[in-house]
Amino acid sequence: MPTSRQVAFERIAAELGYDFGGAIKIGGNYAPFVIHRNEVYVSGQIPRVADTVMVTGRVGAMVSLPQAQLAARICAMRALALLRQAAGDLARIERILRITVFVQCSDDFTQHSEVADAASEVLHAVLGDAGMHTRTSVGVLQLPKNAAVEMDLVAAIA
Amino acid sequence: MPTSRQVAFERIAAELGYDFGGAIKIGGNYAPFVIHRNEVYVSGQIPRVADTVMVTGRVGAMVSLPQAQLAARICAMRALALLRQAAGDLARIERILRITVFVQCSDDFTQHSEVADAASEVLHAVLGDAGMHTRTSVGVLQLPKNAAVEMDLVAAIA
Amino acid sequence: MPTSRQVAFERIAAELGYDFGGAIKIGGNYAPFVIHRNEVYVSGQIPRVADTVMVTGRVGAMVSLPQAQLAARICAMRALALLRQAAGDLARIERILRITVFVQCSDDFTQHSEVADAASEVLHAVLGDAGMHTRTSVGVLQLPKNAAVEMDLVAAIA
Repeated sequence: MPTSRQVAFERIAAELGYDFGGAIKIGGNYAPFVIHRNEVYVSGQIPRVADTVMVTGRVGAMVSLPQAQLAARICAMRALALLRQAAGDLARIERILRITVFVQCSDDFTQHSEVADAASEVLHAVLGDAGMHTRTSVGVLQLPKNAAVEMDLVAAIA
Repeated sequence: MPTSRQVAFERIAAELGYDFGGAIKIGGNYAPFVIHRNEVYVSGQIPRVADTVMVTGRVGAMVSLPQAQLAARICAMRALALLRQAAGDLARIERILRITVFVQCSDDFTQHSEVADAASEVLHAVLGDAGMHTRTSVGVLQLPKNAAVEMDLVAAIA
Repeated sequence: MPTSRQVAFERIAAELGYDFGGAIKIGGNYAPFVIHRNEVYVSGQIPRVADTVMVTGRVGAMVSLPQAQLAARICAMRALALLRQAAGDLARIERILRITVFVQCSDDFTQHSEVADAASEVLHAVLGDAGMHTRTSVGVLQLPKNAAVEMDLVAAIA
C-alpha cells in the first residue's frame, strides 16, 4: 500500500512535470499543516511550484478549463505532499475528510465542478478509497497572488 | 425524539413541496458525506431536487431574497437528508457543528445573513437545540450550475 | 501562561482602542461558538464592535490595505474573545487548527495574504505557538453588512 500510493504520486508528478518533493513555501505566522489528534488540517494551497504560481488569472476569461484543471491538480499534489510530510508516509493517510476548492472565475463561469474534479481525481488516483472525500466548490472574485485555484483540506491519519 | 424530528423534516418537505427521500445525486470522485469517528462531513449542497437546480441566478439581481431563502431551505433539507442517511436516523444527530453558506450575489447585496437564516431555521426546526450551529455566510461571484446558494456542514453523531 | 496570554490580549485591545470584554452580538438560530469534545467552532466574525461594523466596503477600492488589516485584527480579537468564553480562560486554548479569512475586495486585489497576516499576527501574539494555525484566504464579492473582512476558526481546547 505505501509503495503503490507513492508510485501513483510520483507518476502524476512526472506527468505534470513538476517536483513536489521540496519544502512547501509558506509565509507569515501560520503553518502549512497542523496535526491535532489524528486529524491534519492543510492550509489553502495555490498552484505554486517553487516560487512561481503556475496558473494565474480568471477562469472562464483568460484561463481555460484545462488550465484550471491543471491548477487544481497542482493544488491537490501540494496538499498530498504536505499530508505525506505530516503523516510521515502516504500510507498513513486514513481518509480525506473534506476539500474546499475556490475557483477565481469570470461572472458567467459555471464549470466549478469540472475544475474541482481534477483535484478529486488526483486524490483518488493516489489514495484509492481513502481519497474519497466530501467537497465544496465555489467561484470567487479573487485569490491570493492572482492564483486561478485554491484548495484546502482536512484529513484523518492512522 | 426520533419521531418528532422526522415529523418536522416531513412537514418542511411538504411545505416546500419536494421529496427529499430519494438518493442524493453526486458526480465525480467524491462522496456526498464522509463519516470519521463521530463526525459527519457533508459535501456542498446546491438547491437541486432530482435533476433540477430549483433556484439559479444572482441574488440581489434576478433572484429575490425570498427565492434565495427557498434555495437555502432546500440546501438545508438536502444536508439533513444526507445526515439521516449517514447516521441511520435523524435521532442520532448529536449536534450541527458548522454550516458555511455561500450566496451567489450581486455586488451590492448585503443580506447574506437573512438568506442563511432560512437554512438555520430549518436545522433548528428539525433538530431543536442540536441544530444550533456555528455559521459563516459569504457572498461569492459564482456557484456550480449557476446555483443561487450552496451550503456545506459538519455534524457530530451519537 | 494564562496571565501572559490575557495580558497580550488586553494590550492589543488597548492598541486597537476597543473593548472585547462584552457579549458578542449574534442573531438568528445559530450560535457564536459550539464546543464538541475538545474542539471549538467559532462562527464567522466581521469587524463589529458593539453595534457598529468598523470597516465596511471593498478592499482595494474604498478600503486601503491598512484598514483591511485593522478589520482582520478586530475579527481575530472577536474570535479570541469567543474562544476565551468557550474555554473559560485563554490558557485552555491548546491550538488554533484553522482560520478562513474572506476579504471583500475589488476584482484586481491580490494582497489577501497581507490582510490575513494581520489576523495571524494577533493569534500568534496572544497564544504563541498554540496560535500557529492553518489558513485559507480568499477574495469574495460581498460579505454580510458590507463588512470588509470575515474570519472563522476552529480550535482545540485542553
